Amino acid sequence: MSDHLNRLRERLAQVVDLRHATELLEWDQQTMMPPRGAEARAQALATMQRITHELFVSAETGRLLEDAAAELDGAASDSDDACLVRVTMRRWEKARRVPAELTAELAHAGSVGHQAWIEARKNSDFGAFAPYLERNLELARRYVDCFDSFTRAYDVLLDDYEPQMTTAEVAALFADLKAELVPVIATLADHRDRVDDSLLHGNFPIDRQRQLVREVITLMGFSPDGWRIDDAVHPFASGFGSADVRITTRWDQSFFPSGLYGGMHECGHGLYEAGIADSLQRTPLGHGESLGLHESQSRLWENMVGRGRPFCELLAPRLATLFGDSLSNLDAGGLYRAVNLVEPSHIRVEADEATYGLHIVLRFELEQELIEGRLSVRDLPEAWNSRFKEYLGLDVPNDVHGVLQDVHWAAGLIGYFPTYALGNLIAAQLWEWMHAEVPELESRIAAGELAPSREWLREHVHRHGAKFPTNELLRRVVGGPIAVAPFVSYLKRKLGDVYGIDLAP
Amino acid sequence: MSDHLNRLRERLAQVVDLRHATELLEWDQQTMMPPRGAEARAQALATMQRITHELFVSAETGRLLEDAAAELDGAASDSDDACLVRVTMRRWEKARRVPAELTAELAHAGSVGHQAWIEARKNSDFGAFAPYLERNLELARRYVDCFDSFTRAYDVLLDDYEPQMTTAEVAALFADLKAELVPVIATLADHRDRVDDSLLHGNFPIDRQRQLVREVITLMGFSPDGWRIDDAVHPFASGFGSADVRITTRWDQSFFPSGLYGGMHECGHGLYEAGIADSLQRTPLGHGESLGLHESQSRLWENMVGRGRPFCELLAPRLATLFGDSLSNLDAGGLYRAVNLVEPSHIRVEADEATYGLHIVLRFELEQELIEGRLSVRDLPEAWNSRFKEYLGLDVPNDVHGVLQDVHWAAGLIGYFPTYALGNLIAAQLWEWMHAEVPELESRIAAGELAPSREWLREHVHRHGAKFPTNELLRRVVGGPIAVAPFVSYLKRKLGDVYGIDLAP
Repeated sequence: MSDHLNRLRERLAQVVDLRHATELLEWDQQTMMPPRGAEARAQALATMQRITHELFVSAETGRLLEDAAAELDGAASDSDDACLVRVTMRRWEKARRVPAELTAELAHAGSVGHQAWIEARKNSDFGAFAPYLERNLELARRYVDCFDSFTRAYDVLLDDYEPQMTTAEVAALFADLKAELVPVIATLADHRDRVDDSLLHGNFPIDRQRQLVREVITLMGFSPDGWRIDDAVHPFASGFGSADVRITTRWDQSFFPSGLYGGMHECGHGLYEAGIADSLQRTPLGHGESLGLHESQSRLWENMVGRGRPFCELLAPRLATLFGDSLSNLDAGGLYRAVNLVEPSHIRVEADEATYGLHIVLRFELEQELIEGRLSVRDLPEAWNSRFKEYLGLDVPNDVHGVLQDVHWAAGLIGYFPTYALGNLIAAQLWEWMHAEVPELESRIAAGELAPSREWLREHVHRHGAKFPTNELLRRVVGGPIAVAPFVSYLKRKLGDVYGIDLAP
Repeated sequence: MSDHLNRLRERLAQVVDLRHATELLEWDQQTMMPPRGAEARAQALATMQRITHELFVSAETGRLLEDAAAELDGAASDSDDACLVRVTMRRWEKARRVPAELTAELAHAGSVGHQAWIEARKNSDFGAFAPYLERNLELARRYVDCFDSFTRAYDVLLDDYEPQMTTAEVAALFADLKAELVPVIATLADHRDRVDDSLLHGNFPIDRQRQLVREVITLMGFSPDGWRIDDAVHPFASGFGSADVRITTRWDQSFFPSGLYGGMHECGHGLYEAGIADSLQRTPLGHGESLGLHESQSRLWENMVGRGRPFCELLAPRLATLFGDSLSNLDAGGLYRAVNLVEPSHIRVEADEATYGLHIVLRFELEQELIEGRLSVRDLPEAWNSRFKEYLGLDVPNDVHGVLQDVHWAAGLIGYFPTYALGNLIAAQLWEWMHAEVPELESRIAAGELAPSREWLREHVHRHGAKFPTNELLRRVVGGPIAVAPFVSYLKRKLGDVYGIDLAP
């Protein structure tokens, strides 16, 4: 390795170390920190963001990048070194346009907003939270103003979470998706009586749920020597390198799928971080960059594996043993149907696979309108509630079940939501190929052998970290960019099976 | 406040923020981190130390300090501003002599050493740990070499933990202390049969111990909105400002005093951090600087309050209720005598108040010899064991009960141990004055009213943070510097009472 590349790697390793500290501050804030610690934490986060930003955007980093780029001749464009220089250069070009002070203000406001959101949720009090959202939006607009190379304000924000994807591209995918989902949801509503999900509701002691989730994620690849699982109001996953992965869950004593599928979801994220190649550790490529790709991992495990028929065969007897009082007569088919019920509901993270997309379309539209000034924060709850009624047919009883349900806007994460639905699309594309390439996939899942699935994902996705933008990685694995068709076809096949009806392909 | 002072405060606030992040990395390492995370954590800690160091020792900080100092004319020497400039200037003068690279190496070696210590303890394998201690000593010597203003190598290290205290001063205090302790311990050994401590040993379910400690520390001032309590192999306390205090404990199912008094001890540290004035938050004065003073707080709560007769009256009926099987016939007098048994033992943190000092003298001597090259790491276990036999009369069965028992040397903390014994001395000085100034102190403790004690300490010690060096603070509170006599007189009075004998004053 050349001297310039070495020096670049050394500098970037320090940036990664600072982010490690910052992410721990965030992880701790959401899992461990006593509430009165919020103000000092917000200040620490702001300073960390500012100093990390300054180190990264410095002219010295730019020089090292240029020198390293000049030495790349001959390196394959998909080599670690070439990807490192290319990806980092793109991020550097973007980051250096943002003043360090603004970076610190964004971090501080996000941290304070997060705490205000927790408080506001206690009384479902959007009014108390509104000033913090105003502030986050104002800062997001100032952030957008740092750039002139994007077509739309929202493009700037989206690009931070889904690099090289535009608002127009997402809008086109979502238009197709919505057009496909709406009739499917309507048809299934007409056959609501074919699925009985009452078995999912009952009394499921939390300690047994913890045991169940521990068993399931251990099959997936969780191991206490390199992972943690904790409780959080809004579950998430973090990674401090591949050997220290943290996932979180929340529990509902009356509804076990919340903890179970939440745990599988976050473990799916965690496996991505845990599977990144050693050669990318302590480099900017050592995280999954695209959130859509990240979400594809969590959704694949949660829905395609976890809600699939083979896994339900594995799960049903274990559930019957653990929750004998409520589930002694459980059979795999009944479980499979229950966990795949399609029914409009209020909370995104608990939505079924079909209605989930509409939750995202709603947020995608609203946050564009907020950032472009077409919708005021004051009018947001009303806009949320009326559009929710329009898309999902439900009245919103209060803001905790509506606009206050997600942490994202509180934490300043605007432009993040679309990646969830993109993740569903990508997951279906990968799932299709995994089926073709992993022998006996379904019977192995039914036998509790989840390693073949994990290893296929590690080989084709995880190990590459952030080397490739989403569409390039997908081209390498499935031969084309993000597409709606595989998801829709997967969904119709499964839901047709569940409901015993023919959903025209 | 002047403009220069403002700018100084702003810069120092950033340094405090970085330390907040660093201390969270350390807290997490000891309480939460999965073991495989150690290497990435060590690198993150090293980078954080280097960057914090660079920010602090920069010429810009020096200029701001000088400008601020020039503007202090008129400010009382004990004002926040004057203390801030004076204390920070002294630390800056010391820190700027240390290369950033060495700071990072010290942090990295300490972090790696800590993990190696955990591993080595599993098999009581000093040999596996020795190279890490060698490395820590080598780095400590390089650190010492950065200074020419100290008389002895050990002075440099001691000054980091107990500013402005010298090896010679400590040696003189310890010589007096040892001379006083040895005959007391010998006398009590002759009356060993007067104290029955068998009631402390039994089966005490950990969940009940947790409940007990939670109750006791809540009386002391612990509150979940601004504190946490967690488990750690080697208990410690951290504070991220006064509103986020973290304490840790460990539990022994067969011996409840370990968790109980450990909890009170760490809560005593925590109260110091929680009691620092708001005006000092986010400044370098917002922690207790002297570790001796810090330890005085933990030991005062653990021993003078916790092992005092009044507190035993409060505790005995609660213990009888919680641990009915083992302790149904417990009376306050029996408890009081049992928890004050003096008997040589192997583990420092579980030693009684009289023999404790000898554990420290041993370490104080050995670490001077190690750092000055008069003792090799290879010969350390043998030196430990033979001196342990000489001072405490016991054979050391294995290294976990000997040289591997403490984390300090593993983490690179050399020169730290003496502060524990200094803390005992200071605690007795404060305790004497608290008795004189707090009305009905003993009867209020017996009634579970611990707030008056806490508030006296907050008023006289805690709120000042790191404004004053130990001896100056003591002069303000008790009229003189650290002294041995109050501790010895306290000890003889209490132990005479416990053993029913007259220990000549």
